[in-house]
Amino acid sequence: MANPNDPSLHSWIDIAPNSDFPIQNLPFGVFETEERGTRVGVAIGEYVLDLYAVSQFGLFRGLDLPSEPRVFRRRSLNGFIKLGRPVWRAVRQRISQLLRHDNPELRDNEEAMRSCLVRQRDVRMLRPVKPNNYTDFYSSIEHATNVGTMFRDPANALLPNWKWIPIGYHGRTSSIVVSGTDIRRPLGQRKAPDAQVPTFGPSQQLDFELEVSMVVGQGTALGETVPLEQAEDHIFGLLLFNDWSARDLQSWEYVPLGPFLGKNFGSSLSPWVVTLDALEPFRVTGPEQDPEPLPYLHQVGARNFDIQLEVSLQPQGGEENVICRSNFKYMYWSMAQQLTHHASNGCPLEVGDLYASGTISGQSPDSYGSMLELSWRGTKPLTLSDGSQRKFIQDGDTVIMRGFCERNGLRIGFGEVRGTVLPAVE
Amino acid sequence: MANPNDPSLHSWIDIAPNSDFPIQNLPFGVFETEERGTRVGVAIGEYVLDLYAVSQFGLFRGLDLPSEPRVFRRRSLNGFIKLGRPVWRAVRQRISQLLRHDNPELRDNEEAMRSCLVRQRDVRMLRPVKPNNYTDFYSSIEHATNVGTMFRDPANALLPNWKWIPIGYHGRTSSIVVSGTDIRRPLGQRKAPDAQVPTFGPSQQLDFELEVSMVVGQGTALGETVPLEQAEDHIFGLLLFNDWSARDLQSWEYVPLGPFLGKNFGSSLSPWVVTLDALEPFRVTGPEQDPEPLPYLHQVGARNFDIQLEVSLQPQGGEENVICRSNFKYMYWSMAQQLTHHASNGCPLEVGDLYASGTISGQSPDSYGSMLELSWRGTKPLTLSDGSQRKFIQDGDTVIMRGFCERNGLRIGFGEVRGTVLPAVE
Repeated sequence: MANPNDPSLHSWIDIAPNSDFPIQNLPFGVFETEERGTRVGVAIGEYVLDLYAVSQFGLFRGLDLPSEPRVFRRRSLNGFIKLGRPVWRAVRQRISQLLRHDNPELRDNEEAMRSCLVRQRDVRMLRPVKPNNYTDFYSSIEHATNVGTMFRDPANALLPNWKWIPIGYHGRTSSIVVSGTDIRRPLGQRKAPDAQVPTFGPSQQLDFELEVSMVVGQGTALGETVPLEQAEDHIFGLLLFNDWSARDLQSWEYVPLGPFLGKNFGSSLSPWVVTLDALEPFRVTGPEQDPEPLPYLHQVGARNFDIQLEVSLQPQGGEENVICRSNFKYMYWSMAQQLTHHASNGCPLEVGDLYASGTISGQSPDSYGSMLELSWRGTKPLTLSDGSQRKFIQDGDTVIMRGFCERNGLRIGFGEVRGTVLPAVE
Repeated sequence: MANPNDPSLHSWIDIAPNSDFPIQNLPFGVFETEERGTRVGVAIGEYVLDLYAVSQFGLFRGLDLPSEPRVFRRRSLNGFIKLGRPVWRAVRQRISQLLRHDNPELRDNEEAMRSCLVRQRDVRMLRPVKPNNYTDFYSSIEHATNVGTMFRDPANALLPNWKWIPIGYHGRTSSIVVSGTDIRRPLGQRKAPDAQVPTFGPSQQLDFELEVSMVVGQGTALGETVPLEQAEDHIFGLLLFNDWSARDLQSWEYVPLGPFLGKNFGSSLSPWVVTLDALEPFRVTGPEQDPEPLPYLHQVGARNFDIQLEVSLQPQGGEENVICRSNFKYMYWSMAQQLTHHASNGCPLEVGDLYASGTISGQSPDSYGSMLELSWRGTKPLTLSDGSQRKFIQDGDTVIMRGFCERNGLRIGFGEVRGTVLPAVE
């Protein structure tokens, strides 16, 4: 059977050359229409392939799927993911085959084609997974160094544990929303360094964080650990992640137990989960790790993925301004190292868990993945195309993150995650 | 209708005077037997009342319950709790009525009684709720002061934010288990202060934390906040919580983002959720709050609950040693203040969420709620009845926490949460 990543594959569906969703991608998501209800789908060009409809037409026959695959009618991918890695792979392989230019099964069946394909503009995308647990890592050395320089000590910006541990903390799942959901500016406590007492009110330092999150595809039992060489078997795929942050709340609350209300008012997900399989052609070596990690975290070979990332800021009624261009390949700690470390004490992983990378910053100032860094804590405001300035995010601003891999004419995209900031309600 | 908290009520079931579960308590839990499968139950004396059986005998007729109450056959209380506060209250009221000495409905119906009552020793208790989110607060001023003294600076033990914010952090739900589940000693990174590099291996400083957790009974939407005077309406009930901790892992990893693998390898719950309604007679004023909290956290009246707590340590094959006696009334920040603060930025609460108090320490050294404090970081080992000493928890040790309220002859108990530590697997 053909390799679904083969760059020479093409589909009978007309796909624009710059599309995020060629036949080599086939990311999974959950969508809704009035007519169909909730369905699991796969993005292809400007369309969504409705997997429940595909199964109803018998086009998944021969795969190891339940005969009435209710997993394709649920409000999250969790049920589908729980069927296991061999099933995800077989489904993606079969979809690749169905969509190939030379396969008539769906192409020449007018009725099936109408049922199985729906335009993306006609569907509402839902949050793709129901995460039981969400962890946010802190694995970009440039981001950790920038934050340490601003908040602590430029001479000792990186804390002593940082190069030994993929530092992370637990976040909150109840406020994780899909792209397009408005984000309300949070109220909270903040205290200026020279103030005697704190005040309570709308955050004055609302920020985004450019991140990529893995979606856990295989869980573990209490007490079970995951050797590094098996870590990637536990990953279903990746999506874009905006970890909205209120810097003033965060800096007042976070010592000694870490970020809390400065983070948990909202995090936004892109709706399509790009499988790790589809990203395989874009593996790259990561930054050198010095000192060498302890044996349980020692990884050889190409451990990172070359995913180009960008952030746009769009003022209300205005045009988009690209304010950051970064890349997932900058990560110091790999996803495999993060996951193996996470499981190293026997803490169970669960299907649908989200483990986000932490803010992805590069070395150049235009690659910093947060306003905190881009405006250097408000000291270097950004000027937008309409002449207005930004230290942090204003009410009405829309933040849009995009990501894609590109090599030899093949583009595997993530689509986008966007969110508009609404004024606080006092 | 009688007040189910009336101390003069008594049941036709024979209940020992020191029982945790008199007719005034009626805590909810989930149990399993081979014959019945999974059921929601209420503890009464040495028995469990099987609520599914009660409903099958038509004894809940007239209550606003579904005719086939599947919520009583689920693996968690979440479905029942989602029916809402008026329903929990009506069910507790009806159970109180059914169990009263002068009510023949169940008492004189031999067949129903056999179906509805099962001895606690014949059932397996399950985790009572499925938490989507778990937050651990840090609200005992004695504990925070002790830890600050040991880890930072005795002169400034309490950080500047502590008296303004009910400090908390997000924990991990996947490792929350019911009483009786063994806890495997975790592996992890640790670094001695004088060591050049960290090492990886079994934790040498395994600890417990004596806590009480609230169970959220009513959720909120994204962006919604909860005024302080409505906070308790969002609480279903309380249970005992052991937040197992690995101090050596924790102290190496926790700066700057907070506790992570030093905490998330296991937390143990007592199986019975005591409703806030049953605890109403045990309200007490809390410690004076100075400075006065900001207006959104300003609470008047009796905000705490007088719950006596104790911790026993039982060496393998040995007898129990009570090593701590504390009280939930010592908490500086109340549950209402914790919950209102948590929701103050619009972060959604979800039914079944667990918000634990943080370690509950009193002023006297025998009331400290962790080995870290009891042994003062290992400098004052405890001597047990068998002559052995403990700085931290050893393999084979069982930690048992118990809690109860008592006043004017009325005792409302929590039962216990216990866990035995198994050796690490390297």
